[in-house]
Amino acid sequence: MSAPPREVLTLDRSSISQISPYVPQPGIQYPNRPKDRPHVTLTFATSLDSNLSLAPGVQTALSGPQSKAMTHYLRSKHSAILVGVGTAVADNPSLNCRFEGVGGYGGKDLNGQPRPIVVDPQARWQWSAESKVIKLARERKGRAPWVFTMAEVDEERRSALEAVGGEVIVDGAQPSSRMSWGYILDELKRRDVESVMIEGGGAVINDLLAPSNIGLVDSVIVTIAPVWLGKGGVQVCPDEREEGGNKVPVARLRGVKWVPLGDDIVLCGIAPRD
Amino acid sequence: MSAPPREVLTLDRSSISQISPYVPQPGIQYPNRPKDRPHVTLTFATSLDSNLSLAPGVQTALSGPQSKAMTHYLRSKHSAILVGVGTAVADNPSLNCRFEGVGGYGGKDLNGQPRPIVVDPQARWQWSAESKVIKLARERKGRAPWVFTMAEVDEERRSALEAVGGEVIVDGAQPSSRMSWGYILDELKRRDVESVMIEGGGAVINDLLAPSNIGLVDSVIVTIAPVWLGKGGVQVCPDEREEGGNKVPVARLRGVKWVPLGDDIVLCGIAPRD
Repeated sequence: MSAPPREVLTLDRSSISQISPYVPQPGIQYPNRPKDRPHVTLTFATSLDSNLSLAPGVQTALSGPQSKAMTHYLRSKHSAILVGVGTAVADNPSLNCRFEGVGGYGGKDLNGQPRPIVVDPQARWQWSAESKVIKLARERKGRAPWVFTMAEVDEERRSALEAVGGEVIVDGAQPSSRMSWGYILDELKRRDVESVMIEGGGAVINDLLAPSNIGLVDSVIVTIAPVWLGKGGVQVCPDEREEGGNKVPVARLRGVKWVPLGDDIVLCGIAPRD
Repeated sequence: MSAPPREVLTLDRSSISQISPYVPQPGIQYPNRPKDRPHVTLTFATSLDSNLSLAPGVQTALSGPQSKAMTHYLRSKHSAILVGVGTAVADNPSLNCRFEGVGGYGGKDLNGQPRPIVVDPQARWQWSAESKVIKLARERKGRAPWVFTMAEVDEERRSALEAVGGEVIVDGAQPSSRMSWGYILDELKRRDVESVMIEGGGAVINDLLAPSNIGLVDSVIVTIAPVWLGKGGVQVCPDEREEGGNKVPVARLRGVKWVPLGDDIVLCGIAPRD
């Protein structure tokens, strides 16, 4: 069975012109970024109570249709998009770009298609040739994924990935159960990835907003929907920060712009120098 | 020692014109509101991770200076403002209105000054003649507070309140440790309070956003600052809602408008009919 035709997404010029200063582009040097690391954009959508979803593993319709178009516009502006294993397992995500004009959606070859990256320290993601992201790579509607892991990946899975041009990247040097973001970003840069858009899920986002990692982030684009999901959801709330024995805010964004998008608001900002 | 001169606050006309449809006014009938209950506006400021403050009892500078002016504009448009005992104890709040043109701040008598209301079920608030809200009432720069409680209030405190025209309102009918919002709103209406702005703190806000109470709320005005406070804060996150065994969003606002105010955004919306 071939994949159903996928919609081609567009976004109005006004939204694009407001958001574009926050996407990586030649001529804008973000103060955080060492030149040997990719530009990192952190992007996600939450409720008013900072929930990504009603419960772990539950996809929750939060933001409106324009928000999806914006996500695909942003994907078209990055060399890679990255999710954690939780998202890969729960959502069977496509992780391609369906914005008008990119390769496979009006454009040539794979032009504008970002590299999908899954961070999966324990190799929990049981992908197969039928996983959406693999199928789309086979159909030349997206690039083949790279999987970062610290564990063994069996031969069958490895082959399914390599058959479409993907790769398992094993970090053998890490003694902890968490992968180092420094390692991942260095490895991406070594492979000529100039920019990466980190999309979720909760564990990845909270880890990157943590005081020890926020300095790796360049720009932040958060969509907020006017809804409360309530207790028990997957929440964005980073670890606390202390200075001189006092609790202080974890991070305040600079260069802030709020862009209305349907009933939602999109917050664009620059992560603090750390 | 007399109180220091307090600043008089103003807000630009553009912000006022955008926010004014969400304040109580003749001609706008909110669908939730039974005619025998006051208009209820819920208003507060949070971080991106939905925190009101860094920790319980810690006042946290979240939003910018215009946000303070907006709060006082909103106070000028309500007959009463209400806080929970936690806020009264932690902040020694003024609970008056310093918006340009109201009584005591360019206006006559107590025109435009809202009635301060403290909800204090267990009578924990140890006010005195020197509490800010009592002093301001004595100086005719604010109205005298009403305290809703279910417990005994000693004669000395009662006298300090009554000396400036305030009142202790005892709800003797409640068997639980929580006061009923229905009782409070009915009692306010009986005393000709047409509208009440509920400002916090966390316990009060979460209680009013709970599935069983959200129907009492008419409009909601939330200021969001572009900062993460991190874990351990006082968070707005209401109890979850279930329908047919499934978890569903607690409340989605209708008639939404997002109003930029300095680096912050102000969300104005109508609470859902319940």
